[in-house]
Amino acid sequence: MERLEQQIQFILEIDKIKSITRQTYLADGSRKENDAEHSWHLAVMCVLLGEYANSPVDVLRVMKMVLVHDLVEIDAGDTYAYDEAGAATQHAREEEAARRIFGMLPEDQGAELYGLWQEFEAQESGEAKFAAALDRFQPVLLNHSSGGKSWREHQVRREQVMKRNRITEEGARQLFERLEEIIGEHVERGNIRN
Amino acid sequence: MERLEQQIQFILEIDKIKSITRQTYLADGSRKENDAEHSWHLAVMCVLLGEYANSPVDVLRVMKMVLVHDLVEIDAGDTYAYDEAGAATQHAREEEAARRIFGMLPEDQGAELYGLWQEFEAQESGEAKFAAALDRFQPVLLNHSSGGKSWREHQVRREQVMKRNRITEEGARQLFERLEEIIGEHVERGNIRN
Repeated sequence: MERLEQQIQFILEIDKIKSITRQTYLADGSRKENDAEHSWHLAVMCVLLGEYANSPVDVLRVMKMVLVHDLVEIDAGDTYAYDEAGAATQHAREEEAARRIFGMLPEDQGAELYGLWQEFEAQESGEAKFAAALDRFQPVLLNHSSGGKSWREHQVRREQVMKRNRITEEGARQLFERLEEIIGEHVERGNIRN
Repeated sequence: MERLEQQIQFILEIDKIKSITRQTYLADGSRKENDAEHSWHLAVMCVLLGEYANSPVDVLRVMKMVLVHDLVEIDAGDTYAYDEAGAATQHAREEEAARRIFGMLPEDQGAELYGLWQEFEAQESGEAKFAAALDRFQPVLLNHSSGGKSWREHQVRREQVMKRNRITEEGARQLFERLEEIIGEHVERGNIRN
């Protein structure tokens, strides 16, 4: 039972990401979403939008990646996409977190998930680029739906959004094109600064 | 763009399950969890606990099942596991919801997800039994962690929990055995009525 007990302890530990709040509002603008909700949303998007990946992807691998990509925030916290000070120390904080959290699992499973997390972070493989494309596209959809609430609050500039979404173009060109239209609309409406 | 637009409308529609509250508390007991958080948790459990399925399962299919199994609650609401009045009308309410919600998708994807939802509900295939086993085991783990908070609030009886978990035994015997130990402990502590 040692193995199952380790798995159960991990399952209970990761429950904490339900309490890690992101800067993006729900589609109806009622409150900010958390990491668990965001990860669930990305996993469903993998199922539906896999056909838009620039190169064919292994959907199961992408799903595993998006399901665990934010677990490091249990220790490292959420670093907002446009927080430049936070970004400077983000990698070191997250690396340490990954070692501790995935280290709770039986060795084979810990190594698999740690590897997938590293692959996601490196953004080199087709799967990682597609996972990152979904990770960028989902908050754009939510922001679009809530009338640009989070963009306005953070006075986000067009150039920041586009820089962050270079990887979306690399992972899924058609999603990037739709995203460009959405961003353009919100620049026009004054929700994103030009 | 018609196809992508349908997919985007579906992705925004299902955002609503982030606001559908379940009766189970988070592991730390701080608040009740919602359907999106629950579904994310189950998907991670698919990755980790697939090895305990009584018969070999296609992990990707099980993951898709657990990711969408609660979407019908957008229209039908959450029916608490031990609410017998609600259970009487639950099936008809959920069937109608499934047609509307999965019907928003392009036909091929709507048919796939509707089929997986039906398969989950029927609880006949190996994948559906394993998905159901996880769906029952996860709240037991959370209840265990929060000191039986939800069981006490609802004055749940041992026989109700065991009846609900027959499918857990059919889907994953080893998880069922661990669950029996946990339930026994909470009967002893007076959190579950004998």
